Amino acid sequence: MDEYSIGVDLGGTNLRAAAVDRSGKILEKHAQSTDMTRGRDEVIDDIVSGINTVRQKIGSNSRLAGVGIGVPGFILIKKGYVTNSNNLPVLENFPLRDEIERRLGAPIILENDANAAALGEKWMGAGKDVDNLVLLTLGTGIGGGIISDGRVLHGEVGMAAELGHITIDPSGNPCGCGNYGCLEKIASATAVEAMSDLMSVGVHLTSLQVYEKAVDGDEKAKMIFRQMGWALGVGIANLINIFNYPLYLLSGGMLPAWDMFAPPMLEEIRKRSFTFRNTQTRVERATLGNQAGLIGAAYLPFLSQKL
Amino acid sequence: MDEYSIGVDLGGTNLRAAAVDRSGKILEKHAQSTDMTRGRDEVIDDIVSGINTVRQKIGSNSRLAGVGIGVPGFILIKKGYVTNSNNLPVLENFPLRDEIERRLGAPIILENDANAAALGEKWMGAGKDVDNLVLLTLGTGIGGGIISDGRVLHGEVGMAAELGHITIDPSGNPCGCGNYGCLEKIASATAVEAMSDLMSVGVHLTSLQVYEKAVDGDEKAKMIFRQMGWALGVGIANLINIFNYPLYLLSGGMLPAWDMFAPPMLEEIRKRSFTFRNTQTRVERATLGNQAGLIGAAYLPFLSQKL
Repeated sequence: MDEYSIGVDLGGTNLRAAAVDRSGKILEKHAQSTDMTRGRDEVIDDIVSGINTVRQKIGSNSRLAGVGIGVPGFILIKKGYVTNSNNLPVLENFPLRDEIERRLGAPIILENDANAAALGEKWMGAGKDVDNLVLLTLGTGIGGGIISDGRVLHGEVGMAAELGHITIDPSGNPCGCGNYGCLEKIASATAVEAMSDLMSVGVHLTSLQVYEKAVDGDEKAKMIFRQMGWALGVGIANLINIFNYPLYLLSGGMLPAWDMFAPPMLEEIRKRSFTFRNTQTRVERATLGNQAGLIGAAYLPFLSQKL
Repeated sequence: MDEYSIGVDLGGTNLRAAAVDRSGKILEKHAQSTDMTRGRDEVIDDIVSGINTVRQKIGSNSRLAGVGIGVPGFILIKKGYVTNSNNLPVLENFPLRDEIERRLGAPIILENDANAAALGEKWMGAGKDVDNLVLLTLGTGIGGGIISDGRVLHGEVGMAAELGHITIDPSGNPCGCGNYGCLEKIASATAVEAMSDLMSVGVHLTSLQVYEKAVDGDEKAKMIFRQMGWALGVGIANLINIFNYPLYLLSGGMLPAWDMFAPPMLEEIRKRSFTFRNTQTRVERATLGNQAGLIGAAYLPFLSQKL
């Protein structure tokens, strides 16, 4: 009997799910909005019904190996809890994995969304040819995922790879995490927008509007992307010096601005990492876009069976 | 037949070797000076004769499982080369492992000295109860070793864990590695001595003399250790945010100054790492002293057999 898994990408406003076979081929897809302001029971019902929609599309001729769910926030991986998620407060500090498993009658694996994206890139994307890589997702914040020997590096409770909170500038802008000068306070879309406001590049521009200004030659907008690239360069040089992995990937909503931030980023990495200069180390764009998390989540049940 | 291994700690001026059994017990020890200014052949002869001295002490009733050698510098782990070692230029870029193996007639594993020390602490020291830890060696420079799932994290070619070259202050003092504001430019013994000279705490004081001044209440000396602790705190907070490992160890010549640098270090870690504040994470002194590298090197042949 054919086997498939279901990957779920759970966001603050919508849920996407896909059935994927062992070769990584997407068999069926589904998307729905989710209203996280409703009660916990209703939200979990929504998740379960979204998964069942995909399951029914596949039918009963294939066996469901399991369901992987990518969730924004810290996951206590052994307990199957979500903790400290900005987007899913209703699901925090509750045995979410076990409850979905109970209602669905199929094995569930929860994973941080950036970890899932890193795993997706490793399975079917830019990291196909390596077993070790680091992914940074450049969105409103900066998430991270580390793949070590083909698996997600979890650390003790599943909180590894909080790469948006590497210190770049020890006396930089304060961050909600308690730190100062975190990478995501300089190189996220939110940071680009804040710098744009501070410099009056325009009136409340979005990060991509700032990018367009930079492409049009606006000197202040170009400074912002040089600063973003500088911060990414300092952070990625640190990661290269720590891991000596062959591949560092960038993804997320800021990726279209690559041609503006990548040159100063690569210059900074080259300067700051002896390892980068002396080994074959690639810093590249991820290739799966917003499918990475979905595909990585779907890979989790297959990977788990390999253990 | 009983089995033992030999660990070697190869420095710029001396060589130490120890025969160790599977339980971690040191059976025999040997130390000799090494003159690295002599030719390569003579130096290798010295290393081989040092190992053979220990081997002869044990006799032929036990089987030699292999020899692990901890070497300061970058090791190309698959090739068995040393590259870019400040202390052992005569041994660089040469098939060192294979040549020693040939002359000795026993399997050799080369390892970076800080990696070997981290492994020693994991096997017999402060890290006995964990499978994942990070070690920082605070000496004239700062070395690092990362133990992941009970093994040394090597990265692609063996250059992982260059933790002395994490950027702490992006516009700080220049470093020979090409970077600015590296951890070892603020928190090594050399950095403590340079800060002491810059502040005229005394006339060319050693780092431990600066420490004694600080203990005696010298305000400038105390500032230096606060700066050292601050830099370690920024760096270790980054490592905690990246790895979510349960244990971070400090060792090396600066360890006796723990009571001066540890309080500001721990304060900085607490501030800068959400993960530290919310998980059980220990930052502690290593316990094996300068035996760690020797013991870790001796563990390598046993560990290798487990593969």
